[in-house]
Amino acid sequence: MKFDYQKLAQDGSARRGKITTAHGEIDTPAFMPVGTAATVKGMRPEQVADTGAQILLGNTYHLMLRPGAERVAALGGLHKFMNWDKPILTDSGGFQVMSLSKLRKITEKGVTFQSHIDGSRHELSPERSIEIQNLLDADITMSFDECTPFPSDEKTAAESMRLSMRWAKRSRDAFIKRDGYGIFGIVQGSIYPDLRAESADALRQIGFDGYAIGGLAVGEGQELMFQTLETVIPHLPEDKPRYLMGVGKPADIVGAVLRGVDMFDCVLPTRSGRTAQAFTRRGTLNFMNARHADDPRPLDAECTCYTCRNYSRAYINHLLKCDEMLGPMLLTQHNLHYYQELMAGLRGAIEAGRLNDFALEFHNQYLTGDIEEL
Amino acid sequence: MKFDYQKLAQDGSARRGKITTAHGEIDTPAFMPVGTAATVKGMRPEQVADTGAQILLGNTYHLMLRPGAERVAALGGLHKFMNWDKPILTDSGGFQVMSLSKLRKITEKGVTFQSHIDGSRHELSPERSIEIQNLLDADITMSFDECTPFPSDEKTAAESMRLSMRWAKRSRDAFIKRDGYGIFGIVQGSIYPDLRAESADALRQIGFDGYAIGGLAVGEGQELMFQTLETVIPHLPEDKPRYLMGVGKPADIVGAVLRGVDMFDCVLPTRSGRTAQAFTRRGTLNFMNARHADDPRPLDAECTCYTCRNYSRAYINHLLKCDEMLGPMLLTQHNLHYYQELMAGLRGAIEAGRLNDFALEFHNQYLTGDIEEL
Repeated sequence: MKFDYQKLAQDGSARRGKITTAHGEIDTPAFMPVGTAATVKGMRPEQVADTGAQILLGNTYHLMLRPGAERVAALGGLHKFMNWDKPILTDSGGFQVMSLSKLRKITEKGVTFQSHIDGSRHELSPERSIEIQNLLDADITMSFDECTPFPSDEKTAAESMRLSMRWAKRSRDAFIKRDGYGIFGIVQGSIYPDLRAESADALRQIGFDGYAIGGLAVGEGQELMFQTLETVIPHLPEDKPRYLMGVGKPADIVGAVLRGVDMFDCVLPTRSGRTAQAFTRRGTLNFMNARHADDPRPLDAECTCYTCRNYSRAYINHLLKCDEMLGPMLLTQHNLHYYQELMAGLRGAIEAGRLNDFALEFHNQYLTGDIEEL
Repeated sequence: MKFDYQKLAQDGSARRGKITTAHGEIDTPAFMPVGTAATVKGMRPEQVADTGAQILLGNTYHLMLRPGAERVAALGGLHKFMNWDKPILTDSGGFQVMSLSKLRKITEKGVTFQSHIDGSRHELSPERSIEIQNLLDADITMSFDECTPFPSDEKTAAESMRLSMRWAKRSRDAFIKRDGYGIFGIVQGSIYPDLRAESADALRQIGFDGYAIGGLAVGEGQELMFQTLETVIPHLPEDKPRYLMGVGKPADIVGAVLRGVDMFDCVLPTRSGRTAQAFTRRGTLNFMNARHADDPRPLDAECTCYTCRNYSRAYINHLLKCDEMLGPMLLTQHNLHYYQELMAGLRGAIEAGRLNDFALEFHNQYLTGDIEEL
């Protein structure tokens, strides 16, 4: 089976599509839960699938350090290792090298760094990153790039982006073509429209199975992020998926889908689940708050997730106060369900040609709705 | 429906039976997983039921402090609160007051103590303990007793036991009879046969729906524990269930069933699951050990639990090394399954009249088997 993207419907700039991979299909726009260390924290894999997730993201940086890419390959690949038989996308490791590791040195060849876990020395290059992602058996491989710091002046951003473009070519060359497997390029260029355009064009020249927009959600704010999307997307091919990396809040996702993005990943639903935050159609609720202690209602009466079907707000509050594992487990389940429901709503709205109405309703409920009325 | 114990089969002193309660039946000999704070740590309740568990134990001491018995009652009782619709047994709080709380004072009336969580002052008496267990809606209520320290001289043990017997009478009197609900008395008397006999006879005089043997598994060792069981059990009625509190290791359970015990509870399978210990038919395995890192085999190839059906030893080792919640979650699932399988094996052996052979096979495998051959 070929790695493939099919556009099924369009509404304005937004697309409803389907990606075909070696391990199954992905309905887009799609949200990918993050399974950093070969596990979505606090969840069994079939519970993640129950929320509607069709693809997970794995982190090359974490997995190369623990348990090691060669070890995962010897154990049959990441799908078998973590008991997830659906598609997996792996990042290239570039972002985490910058955000987590110590004593980094960047050269034309690649990056050397020290592990944040034990201080051991490691190297990542485009060739090694692609090899690791191949060993992990990622359905979607990301090209190796330098994560441009934010803010950067235009000259620094340009040099960084051009290095990433040379690395993108080496990544493409190192990628071993196999049926059902694809590699995505990553557009860089910070917030500079000319650099973003140059980057997108350079990637199209190389030719990828999908195009990611990197270097956003790093502190530039939603408005600049949306402006950058509007700059980049016209430079991307219509017949390939578009992936906005590391995004984001529900409102970021709605806005990015409106502008033509197909794929997202973010730690927000899982990390929030471990810090007592629940996403709802009226905004977020903090379940450490004592006002939930006697509340017999479900987290959200209209939600159909496992948590809302079976437990009260009082119980969730109790678990979190007692530092019981089940608290984060239940909130993570709910939050992932919330995100997948949002994506299903967006897909349905695009199919029905009413995405603008959907976005308006979302904003009215989520951003201005009274959470007390939940 | 009446609270009831029926003996279905006997093999030597061992009994195969069935307890009927307001929330369902319990096949005995039975092991009760511990759900201290209204949750079996790291498990969803239906996953606990999947292991074969038919009854949970809840801790009165923890629940009276957080979330509070009146709060649980207002929220519909412990079953609804924690989403467990099968039977629940609650302890009386006496043991945890002794082992966890600070600044205790014991009088004829009861115990005053300070919470180990926030230092707040609380009182427990036979009447209040029974009231709390009633508010929690426990199917099986335990009478309030003093946990006699070990070792104690005979005079101290006698005074402590006789106080517990007076408290047992007050507990029985405070218990509100309802269809399907029962109250158990607790035999005390440390390791002194005469005191144990006096205690058992005193409880029979009062009359309970079941009889627990308390004050064991507190450091006296397996031999003294078994000797004490052999002293006590002839003094207990044939037509009521017998519960050995806080026990124990698999070999303790096998030996106690051989001597006529019907019910057990212990934190060992759940706590071990959080400290990387797995129970197997060949003994215990520590999954932090690096020798598992490349091992593609399941924890136990003959085990049918969720963990053994889906994950490798290498993966479990990886999760534990990374401090991922899923590691304890998977080991807890396996350990509870192991305990319930052991109980099912014991029940089957009693029915077949071959419990001695079963116990011999167990000892040959568990205590002298080569765990490397697993």
